[in-house]
Amino acid sequence: MSELSVNHLLGIKHISAADIQLIFETADHFKEVINRPIRKVPSLRDVTIANLFFENSTRTRLSFELAEKRLSADVVNFSASSSSVNKGETLIDTVNNILAMKVDMVVMRHPNPGAGVFLSKHVDASIVNAGDGTHEHPTQALLDTYSIREKLGEVKGKKIVIVGDILHSRVALSNIFCLQKLGAEVKVCGPNTLIPQHIKSLGVEVEHNLDQALQWCDVANMLRVQNERMSTRYFPSTREYVAQFGLDKQRLEQINKSIVIMHPGPINRGVEISSDIADSHHAIILNQVENGVAIRMAILYLLASKLKHYSAETL
Amino acid sequence: MSELSVNHLLGIKHISAADIQLIFETADHFKEVINRPIRKVPSLRDVTIANLFFENSTRTRLSFELAEKRLSADVVNFSASSSSVNKGETLIDTVNNILAMKVDMVVMRHPNPGAGVFLSKHVDASIVNAGDGTHEHPTQALLDTYSIREKLGEVKGKKIVIVGDILHSRVALSNIFCLQKLGAEVKVCGPNTLIPQHIKSLGVEVEHNLDQALQWCDVANMLRVQNERMSTRYFPSTREYVAQFGLDKQRLEQINKSIVIMHPGPINRGVEISSDIADSHHAIILNQVENGVAIRMAILYLLASKLKHYSAETL
Amino acid sequence: MSELSVNHLLGIKHISAADIQLIFETADHFKEVINRPIRKVPSLRDVTIANLFFENSTRTRLSFELAEKRLSADVVNFSASSSSVNKGETLIDTVNNILAMKVDMVVMRHPNPGAGVFLSKHVDASIVNAGDGTHEHPTQALLDTYSIREKLGEVKGKKIVIVGDILHSRVALSNIFCLQKLGAEVKVCGPNTLIPQHIKSLGVEVEHNLDQALQWCDVANMLRVQNERMSTRYFPSTREYVAQFGLDKQRLEQINKSIVIMHPGPINRGVEISSDIADSHHAIILNQVENGVAIRMAILYLLASKLKHYSAETL
Repeated sequence: MSELSVNHLLGIKHISAADIQLIFETADHFKEVINRPIRKVPSLRDVTIANLFFENSTRTRLSFELAEKRLSADVVNFSASSSSVNKGETLIDTVNNILAMKVDMVVMRHPNPGAGVFLSKHVDASIVNAGDGTHEHPTQALLDTYSIREKLGEVKGKKIVIVGDILHSRVALSNIFCLQKLGAEVKVCGPNTLIPQHIKSLGVEVEHNLDQALQWCDVANMLRVQNERMSTRYFPSTREYVAQFGLDKQRLEQINKSIVIMHPGPINRGVEISSDIADSHHAIILNQVENGVAIRMAILYLLASKLKHYSAETL
Repeated sequence: MSELSVNHLLGIKHISAADIQLIFETADHFKEVINRPIRKVPSLRDVTIANLFFENSTRTRLSFELAEKRLSADVVNFSASSSSVNKGETLIDTVNNILAMKVDMVVMRHPNPGAGVFLSKHVDASIVNAGDGTHEHPTQALLDTYSIREKLGEVKGKKIVIVGDILHSRVALSNIFCLQKLGAEVKVCGPNTLIPQHIKSLGVEVEHNLDQALQWCDVANMLRVQNERMSTRYFPSTREYVAQFGLDKQRLEQINKSIVIMHPGPINRGVEISSDIADSHHAIILNQVENGVAIRMAILYLLASKLKHYSAETL
Repeated sequence: MSELSVNHLLGIKHISAADIQLIFETADHFKEVINRPIRKVPSLRDVTIANLFFENSTRTRLSFELAEKRLSADVVNFSASSSSVNKGETLIDTVNNILAMKVDMVVMRHPNPGAGVFLSKHVDASIVNAGDGTHEHPTQALLDTYSIREKLGEVKGKKIVIVGDILHSRVALSNIFCLQKLGAEVKVCGPNTLIPQHIKSLGVEVEHNLDQALQWCDVANMLRVQNERMSTRYFPSTREYVAQFGLDKQRLEQINKSIVIMHPGPINRGVEISSDIADSHHAIILNQVENGVAIRMAILYLLASKLKHYSAETL
């Protein structure tokens, strides 16, 4: 059987198209598993996984936790509020302590960009990046791209526009890498102040007019307006944002073709997208969530099978 | 085997006496199970349950969690403090996201009355109401009534007085429905400002004198004085409350009969009841707690057996 | 097979040298288990353990939780922030409620010295003290002493200096009891204001000069400077503390022998010990963490085998 070229999932930038394909094929299998009456497999029965969340998260943490439990892994949770981090301990010391308790894999969300990459160089465990500041959110990009593949048959040659605050979005950056590696074309669309200057160097075109962008694309990925991450100087008022970059039924009907609508959640209904769009057949938002569990099972399974002490059971 | 007439447990108002009897008979079985050396049964081995607590809770959450684990269900916990709720997501979106991860049942505590009923109309999962604002707390009423049945042999014809803040109490309302459906007589007793005006329309008599109420009843359910829920304008001082509605040994000895004393916990010792009463053989407070696990196992088991994909193992 | 002389682990003061030896021999077995590819044993499959943490903790809570999971116990967690404790319930009522749900063992961290001892007299469960204020932290002392035994072959006759804030340290007190019971010699070293006056009555010598202490000892246990526990009047400035009681490479090289360096964590790098010491072969800090899981498995296993309803499986 094939295996991943990496021992960690730190970002999409670091993995190959073949890695992504392997993850998708493995996720196909696990998607079948979680839609069976018996959703659990014993694959990771002897693997211990620590979920280290230094930032709050509901859906990503739950999705990983369910993925881990359905693989029969042993799971321990750790969140910043109850942590020694507040006691002045370094990140490496915190993680080395957890690893000394015979933890095999660490799923980590951290506010600092590059925290996962840094950690992977200093500790002896498999690291899965569950979002590191404004840097990458690789599992989100994989589940997004997997959902496009599922909906449209393939990713190659498809046109995807990512709409919103590109500057602060780890989801946007990871999606760009993932889509491009599989041969899709990517544009970004948003207020000028929220598009990073280096974006063109990634081979991504910028389109400031949402109607034009919709006319061009097969898929629109509507990013969440992250009020909590935003400093006001970059950002238009909500009313201005909705007028220029909000997607509603009227806007979608103006163009004469079917577009797939995505959103990483949680949705601000009436801001990024209106309720009639969110609940329409155009949107694959809940499919993304469902696929998230299968994708995370695939990643954990593939990384676990590379652990020294571990001989993965056959799927 | 019989089954429940409902797919959710949203309140006692919505279920029949036959439902309650079925829950009790199933709880009889599980009470035996949890008193065996081996307390676990594989009944819900392929069922995933999410505990969604939008309000703090210790005993109810623990009781559900233990019930779920002893049924071998997969459990994920979710509390408001770490949730997307603070990010402006709607309740339906939050729950639909969790369900998209293939969760079968949702146990929910929510500050808004009717949150469970509302949710059950919009999502496709079995909902168990673990307390919704001042509305209902059905599992508490079931475990209370089950404890009376256990202590007195039957509920029919028994006289129960519920003492305290009836106005803000979901425990009182659910108990009234449950006791009446099984043929008990219910009175309430408390300060005039804490008795809702519509209570008589439920067939419940009001008694403002605790001594008279005790003289009448077989069982006194002493509600917790919920300081955290109370606005001062309704409420007498603690000293006044204790003098009029607090139960102590002296008061109990004045009447010439044995009364069963209940309390939903947590106790304010010296307020609703004195320590000598709480620790006496009259009180069945810890029996209520023990029965809570058996009742919740019964409810989860009976609702799970109605899930589409699920074929319950025989007890 | 031998068994412990106690039904609880409340402190080292209450147990015998034979108890400690039995715990160590049992931990030897579990240390092998957690270093196997398959790290789980079914020993506590029918035991329910509640972790009650009334104070924040990362490593101790995680270590207990992993120990419990590797013994296949059912685990429920409870932390002060979400607890009824804030609702005015007494500790005994809180714990009796949890026990009524058929919990067999309670692992408790509590800010009040003696909370575990007090509880053990009033409730019917096996109590493990995971730190009670400034009183005792028996599992830490056992894992520290076990780590010395592992590194140096035996504890008897060895010379150990405990350095730092002895006055507020439950780790120091438990270590003193444990080391002395196994025949080691113990000195303490630290600022005069942080050495309790009664320490000599325990047969412990005081040495205020760290260089002299290092010259004397085989092992130096460098306590964490607990900023959060300290009132400023007792405490020198950090700069003064580091100059007099901080351990760095230069200081260690001045003495002509090899010393084992320990630290209970979390480390303030550059305060109690410098980074070059923490990461050197002298330090056994991560071994302590690893041994912590084995020691806790041993304690839980040995106490569980004394539970009335429980017949322990053979190791």
